[in-house]
Amino acid sequence: MSTYPAPFARLIRELCKLPGIGEKTAARLAFHMLKEKREDVLELAESIGRLRTEMDLCRKCFGLSEAAQRSDEGGECKVCQDPRRDREKICVVEEPADMIAVERSQEYKGLYHVLHGTISPLDGVGPDSLRIKELLSRVQSSAIREVIVATNPTVEGEATALYLSKVIKPLGVKVTRIARGLPMGGDLEYTDAVTLSKAIEGRREI
Amino acid sequence: MSTYPAPFARLIRELCKLPGIGEKTAARLAFHMLKEKREDVLELAESIGRLRTEMDLCRKCFGLSEAAQRSDEGGECKVCQDPRRDREKICVVEEPADMIAVERSQEYKGLYHVLHGTISPLDGVGPDSLRIKELLSRVQSSAIREVIVATNPTVEGEATALYLSKVIKPLGVKVTRIARGLPMGGDLEYTDAVTLSKAIEGRREI
Repeated sequence: MSTYPAPFARLIRELCKLPGIGEKTAARLAFHMLKEKREDVLELAESIGRLRTEMDLCRKCFGLSEAAQRSDEGGECKVCQDPRRDREKICVVEEPADMIAVERSQEYKGLYHVLHGTISPLDGVGPDSLRIKELLSRVQSSAIREVIVATNPTVEGEATALYLSKVIKPLGVKVTRIARGLPMGGDLEYTDAVTLSKAIEGRREI
Repeated sequence: MSTYPAPFARLIRELCKLPGIGEKTAARLAFHMLKEKREDVLELAESIGRLRTEMDLCRKCFGLSEAAQRSDEGGECKVCQDPRRDREKICVVEEPADMIAVERSQEYKGLYHVLHGTISPLDGVGPDSLRIKELLSRVQSSAIREVIVATNPTVEGEATALYLSKVIKPLGVKVTRIARGLPMGGDLEYTDAVTLSKAIEGRREI
């Protein structure tokens, strides 16, 4: 590293902090930025610099939202503001990225709630560290009739789903879990036993 | 893409312009920047933004150099300024990154000259588009006794090496080419025929 000029070494050090980027990739990116048109590089720097001021969490669902320009906009995301969405359903996901993945499938037309994590006692993450209290108050105070739990099919995701069903069902609201089974284009022969058993368990009449 | 809030989509678009970064990686990086500490993200933005103003090409060897703070520093890079370097040798490389690679090997103690490309008639790059004129004037005006051509062992790199030897030799200066052969840790069985023939051709007494 000592062979690089200081501003270059500094950029490489910063790039290395990004996930999946080691020193070699960082150097390649940095050399690219040196060769690239000046405006393009400055635009990238600006986009990164402005990201955190222009983005906000929706104060209702905690998904991504553009920062409110005027205070009367209320800081709600596009989905929460959209009058065409089905306000009787809430899809609970772990992270904002998951919300965007569900949106992209274009199958779901209801509302969302982003937990920002999963219950994981080993990492010291209990229900209080997540946005579960806010979810419960949304369920209680509005016309929600179904909570679709779309946490990841991992140990933590399943535990969180179980916990949610325990605390939400007493409120008289239906709690459902997204189906676990073979992915489209998958192959029975190479599917692990747990997935296969979930797929058989979740079979539906056709 | 339309599902992302605008500042986020903009950042992803900018990141996608970097080499080896597609939309998925860009989204992963962008989500990371959203979660990361604010200072870290701003520091990255600043490093990128300042790169082009703080970096310059050395006006002597055209390698990377920190931008001259005072005009009397002359805009020369650390290597060109270093009085301990052997001023009778010049190592000619294609790109600034190559100069850094040679530096890292700690084998070479002379000066450098960065061509910023190779002769490639198909791409319309002739000797005049490269820093060859400057190389010749350096060779003529100083005490250079050997020019080591360390262009890449590709068709263009070899052609450039050949061209350089043709124009420099008449000046009474020794022109050498870095050795081509098996890389350390390589395997004869899996080495291509051209490399192997170069390795045999370049054999040395032990």
